[in-house]
Amino acid sequence: MFLTPEAMHSGGAARACRRACRCWLSGCAGPADGTQQPDAPGRAVAGEALVDLCRRRHFLSGTAPQLSTAALLSGCHSGFGPLGVELRKNLASQWWSSMVVFREQVFAVDSLHQQPGSSQPGDSAFRLVSPECIREILQDKELSKEQLVAFLENLLKTSGKLRETLLHGALEHYANCLDLVNRKLPYGLAQIGVCFHPVSDTKQIPNSVTRVGEKTEASLVWFTPTRTSSQWLDFWLRHRLLWWRKFAMSPSNFSSADCQDESGRKGSKLYYSFPWGKEPVETLWNLGDQELLNMYPGNVSAIQLAENSFARKKSLQRKVLKLHPCLAPIKVALDVGKGPMVELRQVCQGLLNELLENGISVWPGYSETVHSSLEQLHSKYDEMSILFTVLITETTLENGLIQLRSRDTTMKEMMHISKLRDFLVRYLASARNV
Amino acid sequence: MFLTPEAMHSGGAARACRRACRCWLSGCAGPADGTQQPDAPGRAVAGEALVDLCRRRHFLSGTAPQLSTAALLSGCHSGFGPLGVELRKNLASQWWSSMVVFREQVFAVDSLHQQPGSSQPGDSAFRLVSPECIREILQDKELSKEQLVAFLENLLKTSGKLRETLLHGALEHYANCLDLVNRKLPYGLAQIGVCFHPVSDTKQIPNSVTRVGEKTEASLVWFTPTRTSSQWLDFWLRHRLLWWRKFAMSPSNFSSADCQDESGRKGSKLYYSFPWGKEPVETLWNLGDQELLNMYPGNVSAIQLAENSFARKKSLQRKVLKLHPCLAPIKVALDVGKGPMVELRQVCQGLLNELLENGISVWPGYSETVHSSLEQLHSKYDEMSILFTVLITETTLENGLIQLRSRDTTMKEMMHISKLRDFLVRYLASARNV
Repeated sequence: MFLTPEAMHSGGAARACRRACRCWLSGCAGPADGTQQPDAPGRAVAGEALVDLCRRRHFLSGTAPQLSTAALLSGCHSGFGPLGVELRKNLASQWWSSMVVFREQVFAVDSLHQQPGSSQPGDSAFRLVSPECIREILQDKELSKEQLVAFLENLLKTSGKLRETLLHGALEHYANCLDLVNRKLPYGLAQIGVCFHPVSDTKQIPNSVTRVGEKTEASLVWFTPTRTSSQWLDFWLRHRLLWWRKFAMSPSNFSSADCQDESGRKGSKLYYSFPWGKEPVETLWNLGDQELLNMYPGNVSAIQLAENSFARKKSLQRKVLKLHPCLAPIKVALDVGKGPMVELRQVCQGLLNELLENGISVWPGYSETVHSSLEQLHSKYDEMSILFTVLITETTLENGLIQLRSRDTTMKEMMHISKLRDFLVRYLASARNV
Repeated sequence: MFLTPEAMHSGGAARACRRACRCWLSGCAGPADGTQQPDAPGRAVAGEALVDLCRRRHFLSGTAPQLSTAALLSGCHSGFGPLGVELRKNLASQWWSSMVVFREQVFAVDSLHQQPGSSQPGDSAFRLVSPECIREILQDKELSKEQLVAFLENLLKTSGKLRETLLHGALEHYANCLDLVNRKLPYGLAQIGVCFHPVSDTKQIPNSVTRVGEKTEASLVWFTPTRTSSQWLDFWLRHRLLWWRKFAMSPSNFSSADCQDESGRKGSKLYYSFPWGKEPVETLWNLGDQELLNMYPGNVSAIQLAENSFARKKSLQRKVLKLHPCLAPIKVALDVGKGPMVELRQVCQGLLNELLENGISVWPGYSETVHSSLEQLHSKYDEMSILFTVLITETTLENGLIQLRSRDTTMKEMMHISKLRDFLVRYLASARNV
């Protein structure tokens, strides 16, 4: 199931817009809004039969025989069994491949499960409290009632919180990752991770602790200039709907509708008609620039004009990060030399797709607009632990030869472009089998 | 970095032993013990240079220029950058492939990031506290000091906790997953996930909240009969050491040593000599049966003699879980018909490896010891959403023909065993591209 926001960033010459789609991969979340339809008896039965099958065949864990779909949707089950874990992994990997691997402008980020505490009054995020803190205060028998109240108020204000969405993490990485795209928009930050939400128990016991629900979300936050933000929203909506329909026996069970949040920001929701009714599976929001401005207050120019870390200083010494070929995050960099730019980039684009389809991660150096010398590029790529640098030049257009430079040997050799893929596949396979 | 436990389970006819290795994939954890060596100046410099490179090249996130290795190891950094995320993903995928994909007896499990609260006095796991709870108590101006103290004591006892290891989750799934292996030991449960630990700040501010460190761990909990537990410990120790050395430029930088926990249970630690000194990267423990007995108190027979859910009742109606081919957790089941068992299983074993190497997940039905009719098998596999069932019989030994039955059409066809792999690869590729 899905949920998605979009945001816009304004200020300065380069206006940025952010759009995100978050995808719930775990069933451990109730519907985020009131869209669940009345539970017709036939539908309920179909739902129960599905849940029963999932439990018996180890998609769901636990042996409780009376797990209803309602209980599942409100987050009351004991997690996934081995088959459910694999199913979620397959769904996540399809999402990742469609949203990250085959897109040059999307980067993976990672953020902590906790956020710093803040004192917003209505905030419902669970607080992380150290037991030592409480024990310490309990041991002090001299404390007055006022001191205990002050302790609790302070706990509420300063304790870390469990994240409720992945938005915060992407915003945190925004300024830093601008560097990777040479401050060019649009670009995106993707993450899959667990988020937390309060689940109210049906029986309301006074002073009882509300349960914490956990759900896995997939999120793409897409930063665009303001003027193209609505085109991008349309693009992603079409793209996401097609993606979902690809997996459905009845593609028309997926539908979309416009929506609006309490502050009037616009978005779209995607729905699926489950046996027990229609549920939102994803939301896309055009979030504007408010969240970005909150994250970097009074610092708009710093966001956009940070120093280029590459040009900052010349390396005095060759540094190579020699990660094992299997572990290196990026296997090949593609760059262009002298020659007609349009044609050279077309060759690169074709090569990029061919390599990605074979599971080889590629750094699209050819789409870089700031010129660097080959020497600068190699020293940058050596530090990034990139195994090979491929140089496409006018020679390639003439006779198909590319230059291949190895991180580990620094040797350069000429190779025919048609042999590159097989060479890399074999190189990585033999590295795996050593 | 790594940390590993082992446990033994006794009681009843089938004695079970549990062994686990947990692997820290995130740097966000301090060394768990006092093995860090004194920081020689040269080593410190090498460490800082590495950290600096990782920061500049987006392995680590954030722009703080003075991130020391010591700060990193105590969990004080702002997370991974895009290249670091990919590196961790590659390491996790190598671990997963070596520990789960190519092992018939290891299953993936998933567990919540939280554990139920308990009242153990020395427990340091962070408590999850609902802000509503605290707000409610703060609004009640009539409360006495004693009531506030009782509230805090109750909070300490009943609040959920953040998990500190993945052990709890594996133990929870133990009884349920026994079903998948027809109650045969050994078998294993694997998981990769984030764990939490308290990090003490260097500046001790009274009443300040201790920080929560996060680290990604990989854990295999291996349940074995008691009599073979030490052989298995030796097996896994060799296996893990070889695995680590595979990725090292200087394999001898990895070493191992015996260790013992406070209750006298034995284990082994694996170390790596980093530029700044030796650090434990993994631990294997022989944990005995205590944890399992705690998880299932007074219920040993239930653990071992639970009803076989498959034999429980006959399906009255054909139920098929028609997941999209890309999403189905298991693509093919391999089963044997009439014929010489040893030879038939050898054929299955060869086919299994061939399919796994091509990324096709397989259910090893041939290793099942309880006999089921083909009809029973098909209805079980349809519920598991397995796309194809392959039947290897004495005919296969004669002329190479296998029977292939489709989940979606229920049609059976004969195919030469040498064509199976290509057929499945093409089938899945075309399902992806629809």
